[in-house]
Amino acid sequence: MCVRRCVITVGDLGEFGVVARVSGRLPQGETVLLGPGDDAALVRAPDGRVVVSTDILIEGRHFRRHWSSGYDVGRKAAAQNLADVAAMGAVPTALVVGLGIPPDLPVTWLDALTDGFRDECALVGASVAGGDVTRCDLVVVGVTALGDLQGRAPVERSGARPGHVVAVAGLLGRSAAGLALLDSGRVLPSPGSGAYGGSDGSPAGPRPPVPGPGGDPLEEAVAVHLRPRPPYACGPEAARLGASALIDVSDGLLQDLGHVARAGGVRIDLDPGAFAVPDAVAAAAAELGADPLDWVLTGGEDHALAAAFPAEVPLPDSWQVVGRVSEGEGVHVRGRAPGPGGWDHFR
Amino acid sequence: MCVRRCVITVGDLGEFGVVARVSGRLPQGETVLLGPGDDAALVRAPDGRVVVSTDILIEGRHFRRHWSSGYDVGRKAAAQNLADVAAMGAVPTALVVGLGIPPDLPVTWLDALTDGFRDECALVGASVAGGDVTRCDLVVVGVTALGDLQGRAPVERSGARPGHVVAVAGLLGRSAAGLALLDSGRVLPSPGSGAYGGSDGSPAGPRPPVPGPGGDPLEEAVAVHLRPRPPYACGPEAARLGASALIDVSDGLLQDLGHVARAGGVRIDLDPGAFAVPDAVAAAAAELGADPLDWVLTGGEDHALAAAFPAEVPLPDSWQVVGRVSEGEGVHVRGRAPGPGGWDHFR
Repeated sequence: MCVRRCVITVGDLGEFGVVARVSGRLPQGETVLLGPGDDAALVRAPDGRVVVSTDILIEGRHFRRHWSSGYDVGRKAAAQNLADVAAMGAVPTALVVGLGIPPDLPVTWLDALTDGFRDECALVGASVAGGDVTRCDLVVVGVTALGDLQGRAPVERSGARPGHVVAVAGLLGRSAAGLALLDSGRVLPSPGSGAYGGSDGSPAGPRPPVPGPGGDPLEEAVAVHLRPRPPYACGPEAARLGASALIDVSDGLLQDLGHVARAGGVRIDLDPGAFAVPDAVAAAAAELGADPLDWVLTGGEDHALAAAFPAEVPLPDSWQVVGRVSEGEGVHVRGRAPGPGGWDHFR
Repeated sequence: MCVRRCVITVGDLGEFGVVARVSGRLPQGETVLLGPGDDAALVRAPDGRVVVSTDILIEGRHFRRHWSSGYDVGRKAAAQNLADVAAMGAVPTALVVGLGIPPDLPVTWLDALTDGFRDECALVGASVAGGDVTRCDLVVVGVTALGDLQGRAPVERSGARPGHVVAVAGLLGRSAAGLALLDSGRVLPSPGSGAYGGSDGSPAGPRPPVPGPGGDPLEEAVAVHLRPRPPYACGPEAARLGASALIDVSDGLLQDLGHVARAGGVRIDLDPGAFAVPDAVAAAAAELGADPLDWVLTGGEDHALAAAFPAEVPLPDSWQVVGRVSEGEGVHVRGRAPGPGGWDHFR
């Protein structure tokens, strides 16, 4: 019988208890030769090279524990790193995760975080091969993803040339629309998103009202904000198709294509009519009186992929042509160069 | 002329300015095929495998900005990860670094941090191949190190067998002695350590008094606490010699050999008379009235290496035999099993 308190915290487990608990929830796939438990892990790098990308996520800046469950944070932190690997044209093989967590964090939250990492990795055949855990007053998640180019050249940002087309894989704008909905308070994370209810590891809290009929597109936008759905397979696909440039759309399409334009020394013209506005984005825009194209062009964190291809490459349906490359500089929409959009973490 | 303020901060540079500035200070060695500037880096993994280890360092827990300069933090953060790679028997090839930093951090501090990473990597022929930077109210450093086993098997913790000897490479106890000296207030980081004075990137502050004559061993202890000196080359050396187990001494020898004993299902007996107590440890113990062997046996963060070798292996001078492996369990000193020593981040 629980007399004084019923929540088991990471402080109760201690550092090695936390490590053992996390490791015990992480199956290792065939890309990992040596998983958690030693000074370092050992991961296959079949073609003699390894793609590596790292990100750091800070509570209150990249996620909020009252919006995102532990599971959501794990899925999102994994997704944004696996998407970076895909954006080189590579197949992810493994993650390693450094965690800073407060001692009063419920163990169920940590379990859910771990499961989120595990499940996102499973989408691409990768595993969490190792990590580190330490005490911190706020939750900090450092993620490093490794990947395999399968013998191909990496697809850099710099290869776009005049005459190439610009295409996008995955849906844009939903994450920004979801964030705007959460910010507005008009939509709360639904019970189905896993952000509420203690069993999935989130802090205990009242369940929000379920959005009424017709609310599904709004819920979808919020769900994508909490757990992005990158088109992982489209990265290696773009490489095989002969993409000249490839980038993960993490800061907003205009800003990320700005990197492609600068790196290639070219101009990019986008055709706003070429974008299919996702239903979730249209519905959120109607709800909040916003312009859906703003979110499509400048919304970050969807982790769609943007690429340039030589014009003669026949593109499969997974890639939607949205613009053209020419001589010059900058990213233009209807002939004008908008502000940078996206966001800059220090301004 | 500087009217309102003279310190340029990372907030003045903005996110992309910070990335460009850091990248510009980082030369890339031959192990890096594609360095900073794209979604991910590309690193050589010549034998088709890659060793990977990650750590997360939190300001106030792993370092203090009034004790450690940016350069110290970079050196130490790099060292502890490079040592983990060496502790598998591998040669480090690259680091990636995730940084959380406050907007009011002076750019000189960031420069010094970057230079610290660069210089520690240069000791082993590795490079900082990529990273991420975001805003955070305190300095958070996530480091991931990659390494090359050069075709050898990884040396795990689990291979110690009865009859093997236990040996140590590198000096033990100096970091703990240095921390105790800093905690006592009797020794402050010396000007030479780089922790004071704005030009090396630390926050402006008064210079501490220089320790008087005879203070050199104490300064050495403090310097090692701020910038550990792992015996990197001894990791691959141990692997070539046929070490059966190998571990980085990060939490204290007793605790880390406890992992080796548990993983191997063996008992380890240490001979306290076999340890050469470093002069710096002896001097600090005399200064503070402490037992120098406590720091040697339980002090963390020296990042020495501990290994088990079959008894017939002739060991070079870099390895000092300090104990024996037998049937049983636990780590024993003079026949007794001390408490775990070291420290556990959550208790």
